[in-house]
Amino acid sequence: MKIICSKSNLLKSVNISLKAVPSKTTMPILECILMDATTNQIKFTTNDMELGIETIVDGHIEEKGMVALDAKIFYEIIRRLPDNDVTITTDSNFVATITCEKAKFTIPGKAGEDFAYLPVIEKDESLTLSQFTLKEMIRQTIFSIAVNENNRLMTGELFEIKDNCLKIVSLDGHRISIRKMPLKKEYSDRKIVVPGKTLSEISKILSGEIDDQVSIYFTKNHILFEFDQTMVVSRLIEGEYFRIDQMLSSDYDTKVSVNKKEFLDCIDRATLLVREGDKKPIVIEIKDNSMELKIDSAMGSMNEEIDIEKDGKDILIGFNPKFLIDALKVIDDEVIHMYLMNPKAPCFIRDDEENYTYLILPVNISQNQNR
Amino acid sequence: MKIICSKSNLLKSVNISLKAVPSKTTMPILECILMDATTNQIKFTTNDMELGIETIVDGHIEEKGMVALDAKIFYEIIRRLPDNDVTITTDSNFVATITCEKAKFTIPGKAGEDFAYLPVIEKDESLTLSQFTLKEMIRQTIFSIAVNENNRLMTGELFEIKDNCLKIVSLDGHRISIRKMPLKKEYSDRKIVVPGKTLSEISKILSGEIDDQVSIYFTKNHILFEFDQTMVVSRLIEGEYFRIDQMLSSDYDTKVSVNKKEFLDCIDRATLLVREGDKKPIVIEIKDNSMELKIDSAMGSMNEEIDIEKDGKDILIGFNPKFLIDALKVIDDEVIHMYLMNPKAPCFIRDDEENYTYLILPVNISQNQNR
Repeated sequence: MKIICSKSNLLKSVNISLKAVPSKTTMPILECILMDATTNQIKFTTNDMELGIETIVDGHIEEKGMVALDAKIFYEIIRRLPDNDVTITTDSNFVATITCEKAKFTIPGKAGEDFAYLPVIEKDESLTLSQFTLKEMIRQTIFSIAVNENNRLMTGELFEIKDNCLKIVSLDGHRISIRKMPLKKEYSDRKIVVPGKTLSEISKILSGEIDDQVSIYFTKNHILFEFDQTMVVSRLIEGEYFRIDQMLSSDYDTKVSVNKKEFLDCIDRATLLVREGDKKPIVIEIKDNSMELKIDSAMGSMNEEIDIEKDGKDILIGFNPKFLIDALKVIDDEVIHMYLMNPKAPCFIRDDEENYTYLILPVNISQNQNR
Repeated sequence: MKIICSKSNLLKSVNISLKAVPSKTTMPILECILMDATTNQIKFTTNDMELGIETIVDGHIEEKGMVALDAKIFYEIIRRLPDNDVTITTDSNFVATITCEKAKFTIPGKAGEDFAYLPVIEKDESLTLSQFTLKEMIRQTIFSIAVNENNRLMTGELFEIKDNCLKIVSLDGHRISIRKMPLKKEYSDRKIVVPGKTLSEISKILSGEIDDQVSIYFTKNHILFEFDQTMVVSRLIEGEYFRIDQMLSSDYDTKVSVNKKEFLDCIDRATLLVREGDKKPIVIEIKDNSMELKIDSAMGSMNEEIDIEKDGKDILIGFNPKFLIDALKVIDDEVIHMYLMNPKAPCFIRDDEENYTYLILPVNISQNQNR
């Protein structure tokens, strides 16, 4: 094999490929990038058996061939080369020579035959979004997936297409995040669960530009994202996702409108008095026109008032401050609306169009109050 | 006590004070900032028993007093406050209340009496430099102090004043770094060893501006730095520093002039094939007009040629690449000069005026060559 690519093109493609290289594996071949120049295109493939990426590299093929090279070493080499054309050649033993200007690297490679190719996805109906939208929808929900694997379904996100609307849902037992996006075309109804890891890796590769498109295809066991010169295939999580509709209610006894930044800064200040692992709730007392936040810990105490607009009853309620912070951080609106029922019922933060809904369970503070 | 300071002034002073707060200590009082408003000035003091810092805070004293507050908690509070005036009051039990706009924090404090005050330094002759110069001289030598404490003297830097010239020296047994700076005034000769930790902390506080001055005072056991509104006092390391003059030689058999960036980038590329802890030397073969760098490891091999100017004999020599990288990184010159004698004698990198001299011991490569 002999290929010539610019350093910048190589680096871009290697960076994409690295997202599907497992950090630990019992199959050393998976730590490689498969470089396939057997056709008229140079194609890099990586696969950690859950997530697979294939990306086309702009470059010139002088001699067709294929080789698998250790992804991390290859990345480190390319990264440090001068900004110029890079030539990669292999001999019959798959030893690769990488040259750029006067620098010459020689590293051992492997035949590509053992490589686990990506599953072939039958492309029928595709869902097309802007890369910006998909990236934003992931960012605004991914924080509330469960970290531990006790319940596999909680480590993924529900992608639901219904009534020409895409809905992404994540939940971890204490909170639910929902993002909705009306679709421009007609689509058939679908419901799948995508691994959180896939989504966080893909959002690192997506350009985030509103004019760049991404096409999404679904099969029974896989999801395929196609964008730019890249294809990302991921297994799905099997099983039926939680029925959340019964947990969502539009009833409320108290509605609060508050400046998001003021609220976030205030919670941020309060949490500095909470040591990690300590489960101190933040206590919020909602009255007409003002909301008082209070926290009391071994390190000291803090309280602060914020101006609000309120409809309905006064309420005293406690929250895990992290859950409020996580949700507030991803909301772009300047003013947010909170809907509350009573100190034991979930609090909803949502916009009027319900493009986003964040449900957060409160923490029992009656004990704290009786002290 | 009741004082009012702007958030930004407080934050600046707390940031400076934190540099002398020990991360671990058996004396909890040392984890505090002593706030002294008993005179007409607000003064913050911290002291880890080796390094002490006193800094004046611009602000207004409404009620004189003194309190010691946990430095890290106080920092976290100030950092998160809105950008406005901050009021700090204490009651008779040293409980401090910190208010800013509508935010109010209450944290426990301590009486200042147990605090370890800074030693009083008798100020006689002072050495005055620009903060830029001192910061640069530290940066250009600090990397070659020894990390482990087997030899206390190696963990510090020699400050030597002789013939109206300040010389800073550090060494770790494998290399020596020397920076010289001619002084504008006459000074009496001095020789002291300053702890490396003191120098790295102080260089974080120095402004780095060429127009800002720093005055340095020496006593038998202490060094005092005075700049802006801050005083830093440090213990010295006792003992006589290594005699390095006999190790320095201006004889050479080979002189090489090379572009610093090219050389550094090339070594950087070579080292990616060396796993951490692996003691692979980089082999440099110096011929007329070109220098070839080679490295061979279990991960692969690399070689590259660089254009040079050479006087004297050809030479083949090996180095620990890290030592070359450390020295090259802090040199500002575009072209550097290396002086070599033979593959077992130290290599010198120095400028014509000997403002800087880096001595690096080579690594024996004869075994590698015999393979």
